Amino acid sequence: MSNCIVAQSGGPSSVINATVAGIVKANQLNPIYDHVYGGLNGIEGILKERIVDLSDMSGRDNRILRQTPSSALGSCRYKMRRSKTGDFEKLFAILEKYDIATLFYIGGNDSMDTVAALTEYAEEHEIEGRRFIGCANAVDNDLMALDHCPGFPSAAKYIATTALQTWLDLNVYPASRKEVFILETMGRDAGWLAAAACLSEKVDILVMPEIPFDKPGFLAKVRKTVQEKSKCYVVVSEGAHYEDGRYIAAGEPMNDLFGHAVLGGAAKAIEQMIIESGAATRCKVQDLSTAQRCHATEISENDQTESHRIGLSAHMRSADPSFTGKMIGVRRRDTDAYNVEYIAVDVSTVANFVRHFPTEWILPDFNGITEEAYEYLRPLIQGNPHFIMKDGLPVYLEPYYLRGDDILVRKD
Amino acid sequence: MSNCIVAQSGGPSSVINATVAGIVKANQLNPIYDHVYGGLNGIEGILKERIVDLSDMSGRDNRILRQTPSSALGSCRYKMRRSKTGDFEKLFAILEKYDIATLFYIGGNDSMDTVAALTEYAEEHEIEGRRFIGCANAVDNDLMALDHCPGFPSAAKYIATTALQTWLDLNVYPASRKEVFILETMGRDAGWLAAAACLSEKVDILVMPEIPFDKPGFLAKVRKTVQEKSKCYVVVSEGAHYEDGRYIAAGEPMNDLFGHAVLGGAAKAIEQMIIESGAATRCKVQDLSTAQRCHATEISENDQTESHRIGLSAHMRSADPSFTGKMIGVRRRDTDAYNVEYIAVDVSTVANFVRHFPTEWILPDFNGITEEAYEYLRPLIQGNPHFIMKDGLPVYLEPYYLRGDDILVRKD
Repeated sequence: MSNCIVAQSGGPSSVINATVAGIVKANQLNPIYDHVYGGLNGIEGILKERIVDLSDMSGRDNRILRQTPSSALGSCRYKMRRSKTGDFEKLFAILEKYDIATLFYIGGNDSMDTVAALTEYAEEHEIEGRRFIGCANAVDNDLMALDHCPGFPSAAKYIATTALQTWLDLNVYPASRKEVFILETMGRDAGWLAAAACLSEKVDILVMPEIPFDKPGFLAKVRKTVQEKSKCYVVVSEGAHYEDGRYIAAGEPMNDLFGHAVLGGAAKAIEQMIIESGAATRCKVQDLSTAQRCHATEISENDQTESHRIGLSAHMRSADPSFTGKMIGVRRRDTDAYNVEYIAVDVSTVANFVRHFPTEWILPDFNGITEEAYEYLRPLIQGNPHFIMKDGLPVYLEPYYLRGDDILVRKD
Repeated sequence: MSNCIVAQSGGPSSVINATVAGIVKANQLNPIYDHVYGGLNGIEGILKERIVDLSDMSGRDNRILRQTPSSALGSCRYKMRRSKTGDFEKLFAILEKYDIATLFYIGGNDSMDTVAALTEYAEEHEIEGRRFIGCANAVDNDLMALDHCPGFPSAAKYIATTALQTWLDLNVYPASRKEVFILETMGRDAGWLAAAACLSEKVDILVMPEIPFDKPGFLAKVRKTVQEKSKCYVVVSEGAHYEDGRYIAAGEPMNDLFGHAVLGGAAKAIEQMIIESGAATRCKVQDLSTAQRCHATEISENDQTESHRIGLSAHMRSADPSFTGKMIGVRRRDTDAYNVEYIAVDVSTVANFVRHFPTEWILPDFNGITEEAYEYLRPLIQGNPHFIMKDGLPVYLEPYYLRGDDILVRKD
């Protein structure tokens, strides 16, 4: 038998390791490969032969890996440029050296581009016996051809929970204290994460990147909400921008006497425009920042299960020697109760596209999202997995890239 | 029988409602009072007779109230100034009107000052039959005479969990990407919350308000850590300041060409000084902001139980007509296993003092905290209560101050 290798790339999520755990578990249940290797820091580490052996992972470690956020194998932003043939030659040589038949690559758009590039190279050079399989994972939920991306539901759950809790906190002071709360979420191109805050049912104003930002309309809405309700809860996507494409976060030129751009994120910029306009006199900002893609306390059980099963599915399908250049993801079945099937799509149809939040799901005048959008989002955040805890904190697997001794195939 | 009233004041916490639930439950178990009233928005709302009746709260609502973060009765920052006798006259008239024998006031330092002021006034004016009882609750953990303040353990658990998770996220990229992560916590005067991040065992540099900030020493430490480990995890308390008392967050005059103060929090200021000095070229900031005092997903079961029992204890002790001017809190027993007793201390010895993090528990050179500090902190964050959930989100009680219809005693 030959071997396989799994690696992670791009931005991590709270459930990205569940796919690794799924591939390892599948090969223990049905040993298609002699070894399941892990490539450290994605393709960048594989090129340096930084490879660990995951084959004999214990059941307990597999459970713990599933609940550990952030890429346990490390990640990279390294792009396999099609013009840089040296990288490809090196990579295929390494695959040959370690007798690796299948590379599983877990991540989002850029990761799928790497899978596509490797598949193309093998085809062009008529290299046989190497499969390249993508496993979808992206908190931004912006991959095409899928119902949703693993990682997104858990981030959505964290965001909705935090919105509900901070809305309560905002409201504790008397009505005489008029105040605006601004929650900033990730999503440079697509507003899925910002929209997820609406699951709290507490959002007064939603600012999405899919709709050009109408500053006067926004400020009028803030003013009206504060007048009517005393408190105003705003959610803004980091990618919100003006009609001309300028990000809100980049500020407006000539906004201060010296023409400085406003520093900080979209929420800070919005705070400044609210205060300057007098729409309200008091603002609080909560930028969810890194926590939203790793605060695994709010892992959605559906999300964890699906991410794990994508690993199982990818492993099982890879038994077919012709199965290459595919991405495994989920499609929602057309049933009353929420149910998904695991699908394989050509990576070439996925890589380098962005799936936006549907504009027909966005209500006018910053009023949030439609009932259809709620129906899409609600099932995703269901279920709370049981966590293994110690001394009051969740137990996480020590990342492989920090365990020097575990680099079994080659130490460096 | 006469009645009692409970109210909340100051900054909320994730478990501040558990004390309200305790008082209500205690009076159902042992009806010392005809009615348990709730005063909305603390003393400010009581002065306006914004009062609800909590006596008949259902068992289910009591459970849900216990898991609901932020003051369900609303809060205020209103201070009973001893010079403003009109407020006192009005308040005692309201207590008489509603036949209220006992006022339970839940909060931190300022709330205890209100309890002290009311007790003094009653004594000076020889007013009989009115008891004023404080119930300790403060995320900052800065109340004197107690082992710890309810609210702090849950915030500490959220902070330690988030530190662990964001540390994992920081480390996913290859060692060639040198980066500093800066986590900012609350704590304007005391560093308890910042110190709690050390429970993650991932903090490289801890900046506490109890130790004057040594900027050159700090930058040298950042530089060294980044050189040795590639990644550097910094935790800073919002109250960190220089020898002369200037907050780091306030920035340094003449720091830019125009003499502007640096805006934003301590973490942003630290990011700027790291980048300017060249100690590192890449920083990420996570300001935990409001979420740290309301992210009730990380409620510590010990904390919730203790906050609830403070309510039970306060109610039971109030059967004694001479029991007034006291604050109920917890003291740790001198036993091997963690165990507390519920104590009553004179509010006058508590109000307007600040309990700092012991400087002998702070290691030199930003190296975190001593083993003694860990032994203090660890038991506090133990246990995960079962949460009542619906559609993937925790179920919280609709705040009383937003339910117009529930203002039973007087609607306005």
